[in-house]
Amino acid sequence: MALLDELKTIVGAAHVLVDTDTAKYDHDWTGKYQATPIAVVRPCSTEEVSAVVKACAATKTPIVPVSGNTSLAGGTYGKDAVMVSMERMNDIREIRPDARIAIVGAGAVLSSIHEAADAHDLVFPLTFGAKGSAMIGGALSTNAGGSNVVKYGSTRGLCLGLEVVLPDGQIMNLMSELHKDNSGYDLKNLMIGAEGTLGFITSAVLKLFPKPRAYATAMVAVREMGDALTLLNDLQEATGGLVEAFEYMDALYISDHLDMYPKARAPFEDRHEINIMVEIGATAPNLTDLRDDGTLPLTELLENTLGAMLEDGRVLDASVAQNEAQRREMWERREAAGEVMLIRKPMINNDICVPVDKVATFFERIDEQLAEHDPGSLHTSVSHLGDGNIHFLLFPTKDDPAHIDRLTELVEDVTLGLGGSFSAEHGIGLTKKPSMARRKDRVALSVMHAVKAAIDPDNIMNPGKVLPQVN
Amino acid sequence: MALLDELKTIVGAAHVLVDTDTAKYDHDWTGKYQATPIAVVRPCSTEEVSAVVKACAATKTPIVPVSGNTSLAGGTYGKDAVMVSMERMNDIREIRPDARIAIVGAGAVLSSIHEAADAHDLVFPLTFGAKGSAMIGGALSTNAGGSNVVKYGSTRGLCLGLEVVLPDGQIMNLMSELHKDNSGYDLKNLMIGAEGTLGFITSAVLKLFPKPRAYATAMVAVREMGDALTLLNDLQEATGGLVEAFEYMDALYISDHLDMYPKARAPFEDRHEINIMVEIGATAPNLTDLRDDGTLPLTELLENTLGAMLEDGRVLDASVAQNEAQRREMWERREAAGEVMLIRKPMINNDICVPVDKVATFFERIDEQLAEHDPGSLHTSVSHLGDGNIHFLLFPTKDDPAHIDRLTELVEDVTLGLGGSFSAEHGIGLTKKPSMARRKDRVALSVMHAVKAAIDPDNIMNPGKVLPQVN
Repeated sequence: MALLDELKTIVGAAHVLVDTDTAKYDHDWTGKYQATPIAVVRPCSTEEVSAVVKACAATKTPIVPVSGNTSLAGGTYGKDAVMVSMERMNDIREIRPDARIAIVGAGAVLSSIHEAADAHDLVFPLTFGAKGSAMIGGALSTNAGGSNVVKYGSTRGLCLGLEVVLPDGQIMNLMSELHKDNSGYDLKNLMIGAEGTLGFITSAVLKLFPKPRAYATAMVAVREMGDALTLLNDLQEATGGLVEAFEYMDALYISDHLDMYPKARAPFEDRHEINIMVEIGATAPNLTDLRDDGTLPLTELLENTLGAMLEDGRVLDASVAQNEAQRREMWERREAAGEVMLIRKPMINNDICVPVDKVATFFERIDEQLAEHDPGSLHTSVSHLGDGNIHFLLFPTKDDPAHIDRLTELVEDVTLGLGGSFSAEHGIGLTKKPSMARRKDRVALSVMHAVKAAIDPDNIMNPGKVLPQVN
Repeated sequence: MALLDELKTIVGAAHVLVDTDTAKYDHDWTGKYQATPIAVVRPCSTEEVSAVVKACAATKTPIVPVSGNTSLAGGTYGKDAVMVSMERMNDIREIRPDARIAIVGAGAVLSSIHEAADAHDLVFPLTFGAKGSAMIGGALSTNAGGSNVVKYGSTRGLCLGLEVVLPDGQIMNLMSELHKDNSGYDLKNLMIGAEGTLGFITSAVLKLFPKPRAYATAMVAVREMGDALTLLNDLQEATGGLVEAFEYMDALYISDHLDMYPKARAPFEDRHEINIMVEIGATAPNLTDLRDDGTLPLTELLENTLGAMLEDGRVLDASVAQNEAQRREMWERREAAGEVMLIRKPMINNDICVPVDKVATFFERIDEQLAEHDPGSLHTSVSHLGDGNIHFLLFPTKDDPAHIDRLTELVEDVTLGLGGSFSAEHGIGLTKKPSMARRKDRVALSVMHAVKAAIDPDNIMNPGKVLPQVN
C-alpha cells in the first residue's frame, strides 16, 4: 500500500505498526470498542506529525490521534483509520520556575509532568486515576477534569498555549506563555476538548503552581448531601479557599472497594451513605509551620470545622490522616474508582454535572424515578462534589437495550431538569453521541458542524466522534 | 427606508435613533474613531435582538453591537452599520449565593454587578477603570482583563455560560451554570473575545467569589523591576496566593497623575521609578479577625514581607493603607490611568503582554532601542505586573506616520522577541489590525478566517474588526 510506504519513509519502518503489532492500540481501556486500524504510526516530532497528516490527507485517509488511550468514551476508536500515537513525543522541554510554566510534548505522561514540576517545588494540578498512563495531549483534547478542579480550575484554565497540526498538515503555533493574550479568536480553547476532531495537539504550555508545603486530609461521613455543601463552603471560608479536593463516595462504592481490595481498610467502623474525602493544602508558613507542641495550624483549621459540625450532628464521623501513608490510603481508595465501579453488568455509565447547589435534589429525584421505573436497580456514585460532577453508575435489572435507553434518558431528564449537563469531564467520543443528538442546543450543534466543516472539510480528523448527525 | 421601519416595528420607534440622536454612539471613548451609523437600535430582549439581526441579515446590513462603548481599540466603530445597543438589557436576573453564580443581561454595567454581588457578601472580580460605564457584554466580547486577573483569572474563566444571537438571528443557548460541561466544541470561549464578529452576546452566567473580609493594601517603591517579581512571589508564598492586585506605575505616571489631580497626594515623599500598588485580601478568620491589640494578622503578613525587603534594600519605601480612605486613594490613583495616560500627543498606545519573568528585560531592551531610534521620546507605563501585562505608552518626538509605524514595530519586535503578545486585554478592534496582520501566526489567521466565514458567511457582524486581510 503506497500510503504505508510513505508513512514508513516519514517516521521509519520501525514506527509503522500493522496487524498484530497494533494489538496494544486496537481496543480502548473500557474494552467496549475494538477495531484494528490500518496502521499505528509513532512520529517523534511535530514535523513528522505534519508529514503524516499530509500523507493521510492526500488520500483522505481517516486519522485517529492516540496518546495514553485512557478515554472513557471511545475517543480513540480507530477502525479503517491510521492511528497516530504521541508516545514518542513525551519530552518535558522546559520548566520555568519563576514564570511557573512547563512546556511539554503531547505524549508526556501526566505523572511525569507531576514529577518534573515537583523537582522545582511546583505542582501541575491536573490529576486523576489514570495519571500513570494518560498523556497530556489526550487530557487536553478531552478537557479531562479530575479531582483538583475545585481549587485550580479546569484543564482549559491550566493550559496557556498549544501547538496543533491541522487536518491539512499545517502547523499552527499558539504556544503562548502569557496570562493575557487577546489576539483574535480563541483557537486554543476550540482545540481543547475537540477530541482530535479539529486538529492534533502536539505541544503545550502548562501553568504550574506553588507546591503546598502541607496538606490536611480527612474522610468525613455527613448526615445529608446538603450538609456536604455546608462543609465545603464552611471550609472554603475558614481556610480562604484552600480546598484542594472534595470527593464523594457512596456506601456501595466503599464496600465494592473493600471487596476488590481485601487488604484495604474501611474508612469508618460504621457504614455511612455519604463519605467525603476532603483535602486542604497550604503554602503559607503561618499555616504550615509546626508549632512547638507538634501541631499543624492547617490541620487544626480542618479539625475545628469538622468539630463544629460533629457537635451539631451534621458530621457523623471523621478521620483525619495522621501521616502521609494514611493520606495516600485515602487517595488510593478514591482513585481506584476506574477499576472498582465497572464490576457489575449491565451498566449505564453517567458522567454528569449539575450546579453544586442541586446535587442533593439530583439524588432525591433519581431515587424517586428509579423506584418507579426499575425498583430493583442498583447505583453507585463517586463525585467531584466541589464541581457538581457526579460519576453516577446505574446497574439496571434488565440487559435490554430499550430499557437501558429509557433509563439513560431518565438520568438525562433529571440532570437537565436541574440545569445540568449529560457530559462533564470524560468527553463525548462515541459513547455520548446519542446524548449530544438528543440534548445539546440545536443551534450550538449546527455551529459545531459549520466549524468542523470549515477546518476539516474532508472529515479526516477523528471522524465520527463528538458530533452527531442532526437534522 | 424599509429596514428602519421594520426595526421600529420590532423595538418601538422610540428605540430606533437616527441622525443627531445617535451622537452619544457615533464616537468611541478615545475620540479616535467617529462615524454616524445608519441607526442605533435599543432592543429590550433577546427575542428583539434576534428579530433585529434577522432584519439586518435579510438586507445584508452590517451590525455593530455596542454596550458601554469603552473600547480602547475602536471595537464599536459603526460606519454604515446598524448599531445595536445593549443598554436596556441590563437586568441582574438572578444571584445564587450557594452556587456562587450571577445571571445577567449583556447590558448590565460592571459596577452594578459588583453591587448586586456585594449584597450577598460575594464579589464579581472583573474590574477596571471604566467599571462605572462598561457593560458585561462588551467586557466579555473583548475578554477585557483588569486588575484582579492575578487572583481570579481571565474574564473567560469568570464566565460559565452565554446566550448568543448568531449572524443569522438564531439564538444559541450556552447558558451553562456548570464548572464542568464537556459537550462538544467550546463555543463559549470562541464567542468571548471575538469582539462581536461571530455573534452577539445577550446574557451571561458569571462566577462569584466569597468577598474578602479584609484587605491589606500598600504602595511600595522597589529598587529594580526584578525585585518586584521577588516581592510578588514572596507575598504569594507568605499568604498562600492571596494577592488580589499587583499594579506597577512608573515615575512619569505618578507625576502626570499629580498634575491632573492637584488635590491628590504623592505616594511617597521621594520620586521613585518603580511604584507598585499591592493588595492582598482574605476571607479566613485566622487572618481577618482583629487581635486584642487592634492589629490585623493580614496586615502583619504584608508588613513582614515588606519589612524583610526594606531591610535588605530591595524595597526603598512602603506605605500601608491605614484605613479604607487611604486604600481608595491608592486605587483611584491607579484607576485614573485611562485619563492620565492620554494627555500627550503624538502617542503610541501599546497594550502588550510578556511572560512575567521577562518584564525587566522588556524595559531594558526598549530603552536601548529608543536611545537609538528616538532618543528624545518619552514613555510611561502602568502594568498589571502579576500578569506581565504592560500598558506602555510611547510619545515619539515626531508626529510622522512612518516614524510612528517604525516605533510601533520596534515595540512589537522587543515584545515578541521575549515570547510576548502585541495585544493583551484591550482586544484588536481596528487599532491592532495592522499588528495582527504582521505578527499573528499565519496558520492561526487562516483558521480564524475560515471560522468567521463559516459562522458569518455574509460578513455582517461587526465587519472589518479583528481580522486583517492576509495572503
